[in-house]
Amino acid sequence: MKAFMDKDFLLDNEIAELLYHNYAEKMPIIDYHCHINPMEIAEDRQFNNITEVWLGEDHYKWRLMRSNGVDEKYITGDASDYEKFKMWASTLERAIGNPLYHWSHLELRQYFGYTGDLNEETADEVWELCNEKLKSPAMSARNLMKMSGVVAIGTTDDPIDTLEWHKIIKDDESFDIDVLPMWRPDKAVCIDKQGFAEYIIRLSEVSDVKIDSFMSYKKALNNRLDYFEARGCLGSDHGLLYIPYTRAEEAELDKILAKALNGDSVSFEESEAFKTEAMLFLGREYAKRGWVMQLHFGVTRDNNTKMYNLIGADTGFDGIYSCVPVDKLVSFMDALNSDDLLPKTVLYSLNPNDNAAIGVVLGMFQCGGICSKIQQGSAWWFNDHFDGMTEQLKNIGNLGMLANSVGMLTDSRSFLSYTRHEYYRRILCNFIGTKVFKGEYPFNEKRLGKIIQDISYYNTKEYFGF
Amino acid sequence: MKAFMDKDFLLDNEIAELLYHNYAEKMPIIDYHCHINPMEIAEDRQFNNITEVWLGEDHYKWRLMRSNGVDEKYITGDASDYEKFKMWASTLERAIGNPLYHWSHLELRQYFGYTGDLNEETADEVWELCNEKLKSPAMSARNLMKMSGVVAIGTTDDPIDTLEWHKIIKDDESFDIDVLPMWRPDKAVCIDKQGFAEYIIRLSEVSDVKIDSFMSYKKALNNRLDYFEARGCLGSDHGLLYIPYTRAEEAELDKILAKALNGDSVSFEESEAFKTEAMLFLGREYAKRGWVMQLHFGVTRDNNTKMYNLIGADTGFDGIYSCVPVDKLVSFMDALNSDDLLPKTVLYSLNPNDNAAIGVVLGMFQCGGICSKIQQGSAWWFNDHFDGMTEQLKNIGNLGMLANSVGMLTDSRSFLSYTRHEYYRRILCNFIGTKVFKGEYPFNEKRLGKIIQDISYYNTKEYFGF
Amino acid sequence: MKAFMDKDFLLDNEIAELLYHNYAEKMPIIDYHCHINPMEIAEDRQFNNITEVWLGEDHYKWRLMRSNGVDEKYITGDASDYEKFKMWASTLERAIGNPLYHWSHLELRQYFGYTGDLNEETADEVWELCNEKLKSPAMSARNLMKMSGVVAIGTTDDPIDTLEWHKIIKDDESFDIDVLPMWRPDKAVCIDKQGFAEYIIRLSEVSDVKIDSFMSYKKALNNRLDYFEARGCLGSDHGLLYIPYTRAEEAELDKILAKALNGDSVSFEESEAFKTEAMLFLGREYAKRGWVMQLHFGVTRDNNTKMYNLIGADTGFDGIYSCVPVDKLVSFMDALNSDDLLPKTVLYSLNPNDNAAIGVVLGMFQCGGICSKIQQGSAWWFNDHFDGMTEQLKNIGNLGMLANSVGMLTDSRSFLSYTRHEYYRRILCNFIGTKVFKGEYPFNEKRLGKIIQDISYYNTKEYFGF
Repeated sequence: MKAFMDKDFLLDNEIAELLYHNYAEKMPIIDYHCHINPMEIAEDRQFNNITEVWLGEDHYKWRLMRSNGVDEKYITGDASDYEKFKMWASTLERAIGNPLYHWSHLELRQYFGYTGDLNEETADEVWELCNEKLKSPAMSARNLMKMSGVVAIGTTDDPIDTLEWHKIIKDDESFDIDVLPMWRPDKAVCIDKQGFAEYIIRLSEVSDVKIDSFMSYKKALNNRLDYFEARGCLGSDHGLLYIPYTRAEEAELDKILAKALNGDSVSFEESEAFKTEAMLFLGREYAKRGWVMQLHFGVTRDNNTKMYNLIGADTGFDGIYSCVPVDKLVSFMDALNSDDLLPKTVLYSLNPNDNAAIGVVLGMFQCGGICSKIQQGSAWWFNDHFDGMTEQLKNIGNLGMLANSVGMLTDSRSFLSYTRHEYYRRILCNFIGTKVFKGEYPFNEKRLGKIIQDISYYNTKEYFGF
Repeated sequence: MKAFMDKDFLLDNEIAELLYHNYAEKMPIIDYHCHINPMEIAEDRQFNNITEVWLGEDHYKWRLMRSNGVDEKYITGDASDYEKFKMWASTLERAIGNPLYHWSHLELRQYFGYTGDLNEETADEVWELCNEKLKSPAMSARNLMKMSGVVAIGTTDDPIDTLEWHKIIKDDESFDIDVLPMWRPDKAVCIDKQGFAEYIIRLSEVSDVKIDSFMSYKKALNNRLDYFEARGCLGSDHGLLYIPYTRAEEAELDKILAKALNGDSVSFEESEAFKTEAMLFLGREYAKRGWVMQLHFGVTRDNNTKMYNLIGADTGFDGIYSCVPVDKLVSFMDALNSDDLLPKTVLYSLNPNDNAAIGVVLGMFQCGGICSKIQQGSAWWFNDHFDGMTEQLKNIGNLGMLANSVGMLTDSRSFLSYTRHEYYRRILCNFIGTKVFKGEYPFNEKRLGKIIQDISYYNTKEYFGF
Repeated sequence: MKAFMDKDFLLDNEIAELLYHNYAEKMPIIDYHCHINPMEIAEDRQFNNITEVWLGEDHYKWRLMRSNGVDEKYITGDASDYEKFKMWASTLERAIGNPLYHWSHLELRQYFGYTGDLNEETADEVWELCNEKLKSPAMSARNLMKMSGVVAIGTTDDPIDTLEWHKIIKDDESFDIDVLPMWRPDKAVCIDKQGFAEYIIRLSEVSDVKIDSFMSYKKALNNRLDYFEARGCLGSDHGLLYIPYTRAEEAELDKILAKALNGDSVSFEESEAFKTEAMLFLGREYAKRGWVMQLHFGVTRDNNTKMYNLIGADTGFDGIYSCVPVDKLVSFMDALNSDDLLPKTVLYSLNPNDNAAIGVVLGMFQCGGICSKIQQGSAWWFNDHFDGMTEQLKNIGNLGMLANSVGMLTDSRSFLSYTRHEYYRRILCNFIGTKVFKGEYPFNEKRLGKIIQDISYYNTKEYFGF
């Protein structure tokens, strides 16, 4: 029996161990898509206790606690931080099979030096230990990033964002981690969502372009794209139920936009057309700027109306869309490609059933000049566990060039979640190492080491241009 | 090489062995959803031969024999029981990879003490041995249940059933296994199925409520729900292609119902609306009564018209629906939840592609007070094999609290099928034991033993209230 | 650590090794569905260099090179064969996880005796070695087939094909491998595809039947079916997005056909109806002739418009359809079955999500007299890798009789691809051997050896009637 989460955690043989310890472990981290609040980096936030850093905004953990029958009072309610932590400990203790078990213990190991397991009995000990450590300036937001080996991150930013915190961070010569904005224009694209008209007014103001036509809408966005580009933005990110594909002429788009701005209802077909043309416009712009286009799809939002009314969005009630129309995605990419304006693209579906279809879409649009220009993003959100990651590695291996993958990202709001890169790298090294160990690939340490380092770091650096 | 199906069958390491032999093996069985005929328990049925008990109503085995090219004469036809058994033996012999191979041999081991393998050569020996044993009163229906460690079962009963056999069993003080009815109202809900009008007439009679409106329809059902509740019913079960979600007002439902009762055709939309509102009504009632709502979906029925005409329903010609609309299920659950009347719910899709989406649905509606109030049911029917069970364990582990799972059920008509609990428990112990063996979870025997016992027995007892 | 791709490649234990080396390895090959050009056999083609044989028409390899950022010049462009080979070598070197890595190295081992690994450094050595060997008459098309143990193949032929090359091969007494035509009538069925009207004119000419009604359309096809049957054809093959099911009367079909022949546009519904009735007609004919009907579906074609315009069809831009309606397939099969004219049928979906639903469809239509009359074809195209093959074996094992499977085929245009049978057999022997090794099935060498030989060879021989 192997010891619990020791240095060879998830590494099943000597090749996997060699690859991880000699090639993956020490590579820097570029966390190219996350939800870190740049203000917290600018202000170098310090945390009051482990509940604040662990449970403050983590709807993954909230979900698990609800699954364990914990009352909402101890999750998002008015219980004390200590009480919440105790509830978390007693939940985690029985969470065998859940990735949060490993994420949490990797964090305890890396950031707090705690090598035991968190459970009801050890909860007080862990509470004391973590809170004591968190008092130290060595555990500030910036120092947690440094300690993690982070060299660059991409945040998630709205087109109307001033990016002021990014500027403060950039101007601060005492801090050398790149904190780059990433363009996330969902509010500008989703004409069918509440608040669209109000959003467009703000976009008009911020861009200094009066938006009264599809042309001026594009102009306003273009101004903001320029603004983001000037501040180091290297890519975009979209979150959609699915990528639509319904074409429309400019005149029709003007009418649709006018309706929406006027507060009139927009039909399903009109909404699809507007979103399609907005996405095509943006895709072309990304290509012209050399940006990466990240497409996250397959998510249904806020499915529990009662809880949405009580505690709002992003609180753990999202779901997987079971009918993603991959053919529309293909048409969308084909339209851009036909204009020679398909940008570098990373595809993420929340539905693991889409893996194979997506893996094959990659191959349809690869071309010379850029190594794996079209990528499948790492296993995401509800798939971000050993099985999901392994499936993603198998999928891109079977259908393309795993060695060119841009690897892992956290998608997280937390400064402790960089251990997910460790989790991924262990799984990656075991995946590749086991193939070698079983004689399925030659043992050429130099070549294998290079592949591991590429997937861990260099591919991302090269692909995005960090 | 391991011996064929010895005591450590499916157990790959010492932790798996420890968990199975010390914690799972001896736990009682609550088979909370099965198709056992309560009359056979009341009358304490004795079986004439192994064909009667094995092949009499088992469409799983029929399918496999047809796949082996066996003529229908030897399956559901007029061949002798001996001939049928021989055909089954020669089919099973080559059925490597099929779960029936293991189920059958577990049954031979547990109930008949036969440790060899059944094949053409041993068929006569097994035929003699089993038939000899079956003569003994020790092999009656009741004694088979006792020998299996069964302490309670939930049968599958129509709302108009008198439950007379359940009463006889309950009143018999010489038999202490709980045989509780479970409410299965498909005939009352599926307004689009042939025979609906006739069924409603019978429901009127049995409930003593003249059904001429949606209100009286609900009243009649409510009477029967009371009747079932008084007889110990703890839950319901539904079998549907998918859970619909089309809302309608009472007045419209009255018209739809009148049409159907009048023998007029009901449109697809009308049928969806009726089913939705009937299901919502029932769901609310289950919540009020503290019952568990079991939803089985993703099944297409009687797909082989020729065989349906020859030998009728439930004979091995059902299929998997490939387009289950999970979003409708979510809307259905959300509607109940918004009224604070979402009952404890167990979701089963016959389509394994739905695993991830369903695993995420669970998390949307979990809440305080009940441990994993929303459950994914165990791998069902065409998924009821090593791979399907393992996927289900992975799925609920990855997306929720595996330790809170209500575990296994047989869904079977047979008194020998309790060995499927053994099959499941071996897979479960190996799944969890292997995680510990590989250092992915700490070796804490007490905690692990508790989790195994909970999933094997206590969770079900607590969740249903057996 | 196991040596790289040695004699026990993919064989994890002694039972797997025994089964492969003693039972699978030496079995003849019947490659019942491939895209070999019979002219090349008739003329006993000799290859100029390894690029010609490896990269000439292999869109699998083209895809992988594009995924590695190789310029189209070195793929389908005007670079020299040597340059293309070098690009392939440097791509393959890093293709860990991709099945082409193993296919290529199996080919290097079996046909060229090269046991190293192909990479940038060894590329020149391999180039020289292979080209030298290819000069030998021992490496002609026919001799490659003989060397591979091939005893029969089924090619892919259009109904209007003269099959002249098949005749030449058959008449040549110096060559005793059966090269049989297989009927692939996509152009005659797909009324919605460009070129249909022109095709029907040619079909009229070749069949000597003036096609001006659905009746005469069927008559023309029937003439060609007779022609193919007389030339040894044993089955058909269809490639469709999905199997449609929209019924129509003869009079309506006449109108639809007239429209199409007149160059008028045919509606979606009309196209579905025409295709359905054409497929039903053909299915009945196959049944009457004792042919096997192979249905390949789930493919989207030519998704990259830019590349299609540049280099045409079948160049590596096809995809997986994500919404295959399995219920229509079931209705189609049920209609044939109701007439007692469902032929032996092999189902292949390109979408691996369809595995379970298809596995269950098999069981719906199995019947006496033919062992596993309905089959799931081997993992195909984008699924033709270790994981896809393993999933297919699991699927048919779990849901039917794996022992009756017709096993592997190459679906290939290449004379070197018979090593895919080796790949499959190794995976098969490991799959079955591991079950025995783990005590899940008894070690009965005779029975196991028979099952392996059946799946490798005898089942196919029997099922098709080779």
